[in-house]
Amino acid sequence: MSYTAPVKDFLFNIEHLARIDEIAKLPGFEDAGLETAQAVLQECARFNEQVVAPLNFEADKAPSRHSGTSVTTSQGFKEAYRQYAEGGWQGLQHPAEEGGQGLPKTIAAACVEMLNSANLSFALCPLLTDGAIEALLTAGSDQLKATYLEKLVSGQWTGTMNLTEPQAGSDLAAVRTRAEPQADGTYKIFGTKIFITYGEHDMAENIVHLVLARVQGAPEGVKGISLFVVPKFMVKGDGSLGERNDVYCVSIEHKLGIKASPTAVLQYGDGTAAMCKNGAGPGAVGYLVGEENRGLEYMFIMMNAARYGVGVQGIAVAERAYQKAVAYAKERVQSRPVDGSTKGAATIIHHPDVRRMLMTMRALTEGCRATASAAAAAYDAAHHDPDPRVRQQNQAFYEFLVPLVKGYGTEMSVEATSLGVQVHGGMGFIEETGAAQYYRDARILPIYEGTTAIQANDLVGRKTARDGGRVAKGVAEQVELTEKRLAGGSADAKAVARHLHAARRAFGDAVDCIDANAKAHPNAAYAGSVPYLMLAGNLVAGWQLGRALLAAEEQLAQGKDAAFMQAKIVTARFYAEHILPRTLALRDAIVDGAGSALALAPDAF
Amino acid sequence: MSYTAPVKDFLFNIEHLARIDEIAKLPGFEDAGLETAQAVLQECARFNEQVVAPLNFEADKAPSRHSGTSVTTSQGFKEAYRQYAEGGWQGLQHPAEEGGQGLPKTIAAACVEMLNSANLSFALCPLLTDGAIEALLTAGSDQLKATYLEKLVSGQWTGTMNLTEPQAGSDLAAVRTRAEPQADGTYKIFGTKIFITYGEHDMAENIVHLVLARVQGAPEGVKGISLFVVPKFMVKGDGSLGERNDVYCVSIEHKLGIKASPTAVLQYGDGTAAMCKNGAGPGAVGYLVGEENRGLEYMFIMMNAARYGVGVQGIAVAERAYQKAVAYAKERVQSRPVDGSTKGAATIIHHPDVRRMLMTMRALTEGCRATASAAAAAYDAAHHDPDPRVRQQNQAFYEFLVPLVKGYGTEMSVEATSLGVQVHGGMGFIEETGAAQYYRDARILPIYEGTTAIQANDLVGRKTARDGGRVAKGVAEQVELTEKRLAGGSADAKAVARHLHAARRAFGDAVDCIDANAKAHPNAAYAGSVPYLMLAGNLVAGWQLGRALLAAEEQLAQGKDAAFMQAKIVTARFYAEHILPRTLALRDAIVDGAGSALALAPDAF
Repeated sequence: MSYTAPVKDFLFNIEHLARIDEIAKLPGFEDAGLETAQAVLQECARFNEQVVAPLNFEADKAPSRHSGTSVTTSQGFKEAYRQYAEGGWQGLQHPAEEGGQGLPKTIAAACVEMLNSANLSFALCPLLTDGAIEALLTAGSDQLKATYLEKLVSGQWTGTMNLTEPQAGSDLAAVRTRAEPQADGTYKIFGTKIFITYGEHDMAENIVHLVLARVQGAPEGVKGISLFVVPKFMVKGDGSLGERNDVYCVSIEHKLGIKASPTAVLQYGDGTAAMCKNGAGPGAVGYLVGEENRGLEYMFIMMNAARYGVGVQGIAVAERAYQKAVAYAKERVQSRPVDGSTKGAATIIHHPDVRRMLMTMRALTEGCRATASAAAAAYDAAHHDPDPRVRQQNQAFYEFLVPLVKGYGTEMSVEATSLGVQVHGGMGFIEETGAAQYYRDARILPIYEGTTAIQANDLVGRKTARDGGRVAKGVAEQVELTEKRLAGGSADAKAVARHLHAARRAFGDAVDCIDANAKAHPNAAYAGSVPYLMLAGNLVAGWQLGRALLAAEEQLAQGKDAAFMQAKIVTARFYAEHILPRTLALRDAIVDGAGSALALAPDAF
Repeated sequence: MSYTAPVKDFLFNIEHLARIDEIAKLPGFEDAGLETAQAVLQECARFNEQVVAPLNFEADKAPSRHSGTSVTTSQGFKEAYRQYAEGGWQGLQHPAEEGGQGLPKTIAAACVEMLNSANLSFALCPLLTDGAIEALLTAGSDQLKATYLEKLVSGQWTGTMNLTEPQAGSDLAAVRTRAEPQADGTYKIFGTKIFITYGEHDMAENIVHLVLARVQGAPEGVKGISLFVVPKFMVKGDGSLGERNDVYCVSIEHKLGIKASPTAVLQYGDGTAAMCKNGAGPGAVGYLVGEENRGLEYMFIMMNAARYGVGVQGIAVAERAYQKAVAYAKERVQSRPVDGSTKGAATIIHHPDVRRMLMTMRALTEGCRATASAAAAAYDAAHHDPDPRVRQQNQAFYEFLVPLVKGYGTEMSVEATSLGVQVHGGMGFIEETGAAQYYRDARILPIYEGTTAIQANDLVGRKTARDGGRVAKGVAEQVELTEKRLAGGSADAKAVARHLHAARRAFGDAVDCIDANAKAHPNAAYAGSVPYLMLAGNLVAGWQLGRALLAAEEQLAQGKDAAFMQAKIVTARFYAEHILPRTLALRDAIVDGAGSALALAPDAF
C-alpha cells in the first residue's frame, strides 16, 4: 500500500513544460526557481509518503464517525493534520503577507497531487480550506481578513464550502437558506446544507464555513445569492474562541468512497446553541463577504480553485492506483508468456495485455499531469506577469484549461482506477487488496465541484461559444506548432505528430460544430458538450506529452537520465497511438450525433 | 429500486434477430414458438419483479454471513430460492429427460437476464448450477447422472465450480489440489480452493462441487488435471443424504460488490468430518467425471456456458442501472433547460447531456442484448439443426461470439453502471440511493470466468488466428450484407450504414493485423487483443442493432407498436453515431500501437 511520489516527473514538467525558469523571472517569484521546486517537492514527498499515505487504507475501513453533533475522524488523521499545519503546507501557495509562502501554482500543484495520492479523504480538508482562503482574499473585508485569513493559511482553522441543499445541487438558483440582517451589521443564517465536506471534524479548533444564502427581499435566482462567513465557534476581538455558533452537524453520509472524509448535513439556526438562549434567539451568526447578491461570483473564485484541485485529485488517485497495479504485476506469477520466452509461468507484467493496461494508466496519468502543469504555468503568468496583455492571454488559456483539467482528469481517473482493479484480477475485487478503494474513491471526482456536464457547459458556453471559438482555435494553433516540430523529428516524434494531427483536425471540426450550434441550436451544441470536453482534454494532454517527448529527446541527447527520458518518449508515443485516436470517435459523436442523442422524447424513455 | 423486465425488447429480439420461427422448425423445439416465448417471459418477469428484485438492495447492506463452517444467506434468499426451484426455472434450458423444459437458449437467455437484473448476487447460484449440469450432461457417467442430474435440474441441490487456488487463477496449469485413488473407485480430495461462488450456503440441502484436481502421478500442467464431483453431503443409494463429506467453508470474502453472494474458501480433506474418524481417515470423497486428465476439457464446457451467462449478467446489471437512472432523471428537478423551453427548472431528463448519458446506457444495453440474442440463436441451431454443416457453421459463429458477449458485454456494463451513478450526481455517490451498488456489482464481471484479457486471448488464438481469420471475415461479410440493405433505406438507415461501414473497415484492418502477427509476433498480436475484442464486440452489437432498425422499420410500416419501433430506430442510430466510431480508435491502437505498448521493459515501470 506504499506510495512513492513521482518527484522526477513533477520536476520534469516543472522544468520543461511549465518552464519554471520563465516563472522565476516574474515579480514575486524571484526565489521560486528549479532548486526551490526540488527542495519543496522532496520535503513534501517525504511527509506524504511517511505520514499521510500509511493512514489511507485503514481509514477507509474505519471512516469518520458521527455522534451527537460531533465527528471523530479516522485514526491518525488528527496527528497527521497537526504535522501538516506545522509543516506550513497549507500556506504553500498563499501570499506571504498572510503568513503563506507565496509559491507559484506550478510548484504548489505538485504538492497538492502528492497529498491526494497519499490520502484523498485526508487531502479534502486542506483543499476546501484553500477555497475559503481564495474567497476571503478576493472579496473579504479587511476585518474578515484580519480575523480569519492567517489562521486559515496556517492551518490552525479549516474552511468549508456550503453550496448544496437538497433541492439545489448543480442549480444554485434554487438555494433557499436565508440570511436575516441584524442591527449590528451581522446576519442570522437559517437553513439546511448538505454534502458539506469536512463540515464537522475534530482536526482543528475552529471551522470557517463559507455559506451561500439569500438575504430577505433579494432577487430570485442566482442574482439574489450572497456569501457569508459562519464560524463554528464565534471569534472574540482578541482572536480567541468564544461561544458555539448555532450551526450543527446532524448527520454524515454513508458513501461509496472517500469514506474517511466526513460529508456533513449542517443545520443552521435551529436555536440549539447555548448562546441562542440568552435572549438572542435562534440563528447562526454570519458575516457578509463582499456585497450582498454577489455571492455566486465570489463562490466561483473558490469553485475555480477547487475545480483545478479536483482535477489534480484525479491525477493523484490514478497515480496511486498505477503504482499499486505495477507492484502487483511485478510480483504475481501466472501463466507462461505468449512468446514462450520463459519455460514456466512468469510475473504477469510479462503478459502483453497487462503491459497495455499499465501503459494506459501511465499515459493517462502523465498526460493529465502534463496538462495540469501547463495550466499552472498559465495561472502563474496570468497573476504575475507585468504585461497586462500577457496576463490576459494566460488567463484566457488557463480558464479554457480548467474544465479540461477537472472534467477530463477526473473521468480518466475512473478509467485508470478501474484498470487498476482489472490488473489485480480476482484479487482486485477483494477489499483487503486495496485496489478497489481507489476505484470507489475516484468515482466522486467527476461529480463534485461541478459534474463533468457542468464543466462541459462552461467549456461550451463561456470558453468556446462566447468568443466564437477564438481561444479554442488559438490552442489548436499552438498544437500545430508542436506538431510541426514533431513531424521533423525522430520516428517516435513522427508517429506522435501523425496522431496529433488527426486529433487536432477532429478538434477543429468539433469547435466549428459547437460554435455554429451554440446559439441557434443550443440543445444540439450541449448534447455534444461532454464529448467535446473529452476531445479537448484528450488533445491537450497528447499535445503536452508531445512537448514532453521533444524535451526528453533533447535531454537524452545531452546524456541526462536516459532511463527516465526513454520512458517519457515511450509514454508519449503510447498516448498518441492508444489514447489520442479516441478523438476520432468523439468527433463523430459531436458532429453527427446530436440528433440521435435528443430524438427520443423524455416520456419515451 | 423497482425493476420492470424489458419483455417487449426480449420478444422483439427473439422474433426478429434470433428468428424464433426458424428455431421452432428444429427437431426438439417444435413447441418453442413465439407464443411459448411470450408466456414464459411474462411469467418469468412477474416472478423476478415481485419476488427476487425486492431483495437486492437490502441484501447488499446485509450480505451473507459466515460462522463456523456455515453461511447464512441474506434475508429472503432462502424463500426466494425455494420459489425459484418450485417454479421450475432452473430446468428451463435443460433436457426434458432430466426433468427440465428443454427450451431454446434463445428463450432461456432472456430469463437469465431477468434473474440477474433482479438480483445479481442471488442469480449467481443458479448460474453455477447450470454449469455443473452442463458438465455432467457432457462427461458424467450414467451413475453420476442418475445420482445428481435430476436434483440439480430441479434446483433441489445446487452446483459450484472449483477451479481457483491461491497460486492458480487464470493459469489452471498451476492447480495443486490432489486426488488419491481409492480401492472402491472413488478418490480422496485434498487441497484449498478459493473464490468459490456459493461454495457454502443455506438455500439448498446439498451442494455439488465440481472440482479440478490432480491425480497422483498425472502429467504436469493442464494435461494432468481431472474433474471430480464432491458432494457436500454423501448421497446414499436411495438418493437420500448421508454423512457430511470432508469439505468445509473456512471463510468468505469481503468484496467490492455482489456482497450477498458468498465467495467461499473451501478446505478439502483436512479430516474434520465425523466420517473421517471411523477409521476412514481424512479426505473429501470425490467421483471422477469422465476420464482422468481430461478435466480441463470438461471444465471448459462449464466455462463456456458460464461465460455466455456472465455476458448476460453485464447486460442485466446495465439494464437495471439504466432503469434507475431514467426514473431519477424523470423525477429530479434541477436547472432551466439550455433552450429556455421552460421558464423555471425542469426535470433533468430535459438536459441534453443527461439524455446523451441515458441514450448511451440504453444503446450499449440493447446492443449487447441483440448480440446475445443472435448468439443464442446460433447456439440453438448448432445443437438442433439436422444438417451437420449448418450445425458446424453455427457452432463456429457461436464460439466467435462468446468472448464478445462476455468481454464486451461486461466491459460495457462497467461503463453503463458508472454513467448510472453520474446521472444521479452527488446522490449517486450515497449508498442509500442504490446506484452505486450496480457500479460495485458490475466490476467483477470483466474479471470472473476469465478476465477480458483471457477472453481476448481466446478470440485472437482459437477464434481468429487458428483459421486464418476465416470466421472473422465471414462475420464481416454478414455485416456488409446488412450494410447494403441499410444503405438503400431511410435516412436513419443510411446514417447507420455509413458508420457500420467505417467500423467494418476498421475490423478488417484489425483482423489482418492480428492474423499476420499471431504466429510471427505473438506479443504484438496479444498487445492488441483486448482492443480487438472491444472492436469486434462493438461492431457486432452495432450490426445487430442495424438489423433491428430494418426490422423495426418494417413493423412500423405495418402499423405495429409505433412508440417501441421508433425508439428502437433512434437507439440503433445513436449507437451508430456515438458508439460505433470508437472502433476507429481501437483500430489505431491495434494496427499502430503494439510497439509502444511493449516498448517499456518490465523493470522500467
